[in-house]
Amino acid sequence: MAEQTIIYIGNKPFMNYVTAVAMQFTSQDAKEVVIKARGRYISRAVDVAEVVRKKFMAGQVDIKSISIDSEERQVDQTGKKRRISSIEIVLVKKQ
Amino acid sequence: MAEQTIIYIGNKPFMNYVTAVAMQFTSQDAKEVVIKARGRYISRAVDVAEVVRKKFMAGQVDIKSISIDSEERQVDQTGKKRRISSIEIVLVKKQ
Repeated sequence: MAEQTIIYIGNKPFMNYVTAVAMQFTSQDAKEVVIKARGRYISRAVDVAEVVRKKFMAGQVDIKSISIDSEERQVDQTGKKRRISSIEIVLVKKQ
Repeated sequence: MAEQTIIYIGNKPFMNYVTAVAMQFTSQDAKEVVIKARGRYISRAVDVAEVVRKKFMAGQVDIKSISIDSEERQVDQTGKKRRISSIEIVLVKKQ
């Protein structure tokens, strides 16, 4: 039984992530699922959390915590840096 | 002196939002600034919060809270609905 599983949001089909989160809670019996994303996938991470919470597993899952952060990353050989943001949404199964 | 001001993120130039938030804290002496966004602007809202927190007003501002929500909206005359997510990031001035 996985206590806490992490799902990284990328450019796969949206419902892949929704079903992946739901499966962790159901067939893997996870207590918590962490949705992580960076950059432009942050909006998607919020969408996934909301579709799971309000539709796919309505009434069964809560948002435990949301945190954001960012780091400066070198984007090319000239040493130019850009700040990349990230989000972490922890969903928890209702007792 | 504004206690809490709301900045809605849209498609204006990125730095407009960063300076708007910073100005609320400095010239308007706001204690808290709320950054709100919907849909694809959610990633931008996180970017704005992080640039203010870590660069523009480094060491002067903290994240007080982050909340997400969503609502189903009718997208056309056929009655088709789509879920639109939103985020609310509350920044607070360090005492």
